[in-house]
Amino acid sequence: MAGTIKFTRGVPPVESFPTAQLAACTASALEKYGDQIQQYAGSKGFLPLRQQVAEGHQTDPELVLVGQGSLQLLDIAARNMLEPGDLVLVESPSYDRAVTTLQRARANVVGIPLQSDGPDLAVLRSTLKGGVCPRLFYVIPDFQNPSGCMISVEKRRAILELADQYGFWVVEDSPYRILRYRGSDLPRLFDLKRERVVLMSSFSKTICPGLRVGYMVVPEPLMPKLAKAAEDTYINTSYINQATVYEYIQQGWFETHLTQLKALYLDRLVKMNACLEAEMTGLGDWSKPDGGFFTSLMLKNAIPYDVLMRDAQEAGLELTDGRGFFADRRGENFIRLPFCGLSPQEIEMGVARLGKLLRRR
Amino acid sequence: MAGTIKFTRGVPPVESFPTAQLAACTASALEKYGDQIQQYAGSKGFLPLRQQVAEGHQTDPELVLVGQGSLQLLDIAARNMLEPGDLVLVESPSYDRAVTTLQRARANVVGIPLQSDGPDLAVLRSTLKGGVCPRLFYVIPDFQNPSGCMISVEKRRAILELADQYGFWVVEDSPYRILRYRGSDLPRLFDLKRERVVLMSSFSKTICPGLRVGYMVVPEPLMPKLAKAAEDTYINTSYINQATVYEYIQQGWFETHLTQLKALYLDRLVKMNACLEAEMTGLGDWSKPDGGFFTSLMLKNAIPYDVLMRDAQEAGLELTDGRGFFADRRGENFIRLPFCGLSPQEIEMGVARLGKLLRRR
Repeated sequence: MAGTIKFTRGVPPVESFPTAQLAACTASALEKYGDQIQQYAGSKGFLPLRQQVAEGHQTDPELVLVGQGSLQLLDIAARNMLEPGDLVLVESPSYDRAVTTLQRARANVVGIPLQSDGPDLAVLRSTLKGGVCPRLFYVIPDFQNPSGCMISVEKRRAILELADQYGFWVVEDSPYRILRYRGSDLPRLFDLKRERVVLMSSFSKTICPGLRVGYMVVPEPLMPKLAKAAEDTYINTSYINQATVYEYIQQGWFETHLTQLKALYLDRLVKMNACLEAEMTGLGDWSKPDGGFFTSLMLKNAIPYDVLMRDAQEAGLELTDGRGFFADRRGENFIRLPFCGLSPQEIEMGVARLGKLLRRR
Repeated sequence: MAGTIKFTRGVPPVESFPTAQLAACTASALEKYGDQIQQYAGSKGFLPLRQQVAEGHQTDPELVLVGQGSLQLLDIAARNMLEPGDLVLVESPSYDRAVTTLQRARANVVGIPLQSDGPDLAVLRSTLKGGVCPRLFYVIPDFQNPSGCMISVEKRRAILELADQYGFWVVEDSPYRILRYRGSDLPRLFDLKRERVVLMSSFSKTICPGLRVGYMVVPEPLMPKLAKAAEDTYINTSYINQATVYEYIQQGWFETHLTQLKALYLDRLVKMNACLEAEMTGLGDWSKPDGGFFTSLMLKNAIPYDVLMRDAQEAGLELTDGRGFFADRRGENFIRLPFCGLSPQEIEMGVARLGKLLRRR
């Protein structure tokens, strides 16, 4: 169908890309640091960028591992922090690619149901009392992918207390946190107890995905192993791209760009919320985030995915299979709705189409 | 010691880097393909570059997987072509990072001794007759890292016949082949029997490492699994960098650059050979390559590595621990001598220092 509206992956819109500025930053990075950034280099990444990141997180550049997007870094962490069969907890739903990455490391990935203010602590506690201690808990506390939810401060603290009590790591994936369009920040888990937390983020959502630059802030005891694993996997990721990001920040363009992105995305968020209000009342619950890329819809009545996908295609919609977001694949009443990559008109049309097909069921 | 000479990693010299041209290529790639290359994209890589590579190898662009350097691609192949415990053959010596990568995939990596014309076929045949069939044989047929050796045409054919007979894959790592400074090419294993061969190469040695662009040409039955594994690992590698390489080739700069590199490196090769002749006669055998990055020295008398490393440091030399090149770590009479990253003066001084310390033992 022509004019299909894609509620699929959470990608930034092409109109947000800083094309000319990136070319200028690459040119200036090559001019200033050409000998270093064209050569093989250390696996932790371009030091000036690590210093910028460290400063933003009030930490030591030696604890910053810059890599090729945060998924690649999660893969390295998973392969080197986990043994086959290790218990790993995730929110349910969680980021589908992260779940896959953890499962490929042969972990036993178990989902803790997500409530509107974060993981269900009763389930978390009873899982922990079950006897098998998890190796890590992977969470996306801010504007979660796929739900759009925030973890409340109380739950952030509770998770960290349990992490201390049971001795597991918390992997805090935080690519959307900086994209807050209204309201105010909650403390990062990393800020509350950094010795327990592996923090991950990337520039894919705030500059562009094509650079493939992400980073991890790693507790000191884990760093030597992860940096060596990164070296063994790819020697180093592109310092040309890392120095381009550094220049982009250094020029002040990152700050300006972020302001523009927030204005662009706030409009889309407001439109999405208004449309959900208009179309979905009575059909289910939806998240009401103040930032990030995603809202989501939890239907009152589950629809078998093959039926939903077929109906959606006929209605001119593309949806992501919600089951991939659930470690146990039981996500038949969950629909992720990314809003940043669509114009307000597309959002309106898309939600209307979705409402119509859901009301028909 | 000041003025230490580094016979360590095989890195290109900074004076070979095409700094200004890369900036121009990135600018023009962003101008022409900005929307596409800044976005998330398919894991196989930027189609125009895949088409260029496919044309050079007379194959289908759908069989080309572009990634972040060929080590990363080998890691993906190893994790997805191998089960823990699988037998994998390598040359002995072989590229240390490749051996590590294969071992990290929990393969049982066994070295086949390398003769001056390639792997010892008698040992290869008896290993195969031993009963356990290898899953793959990893070879670097042209200007091998670390030895500098070539596999003869006869042995190339014999390896492929055995691969057919016993049903194993050949992974042909070929980053140096294009850097031939004299003499003429032998056929690739890929050219002789492409349905058995996974071919790997990269632009790290011919443009610069900092771009992190390498590729694999993959037999059709393996491609879906490897492309999916690449996507699961990092979504895609940087299309900005891939389009930069494409533009660099498209402008004709790659050809010109290659001609310049060959002239630069031929001088260094000639100097290295002359110095080895002058300094090493009687101490051992060395390879006499017509291209690539490496010569190597096989000492008549092994020296414990800790002794050699200490002596080298005192003499103002940095050497790589030769044991890492051997799957069984028995490399105590092997010294790798990279020559491209050193000036003729450094080569002369370095080989003289090495000769002096070896004669003292």
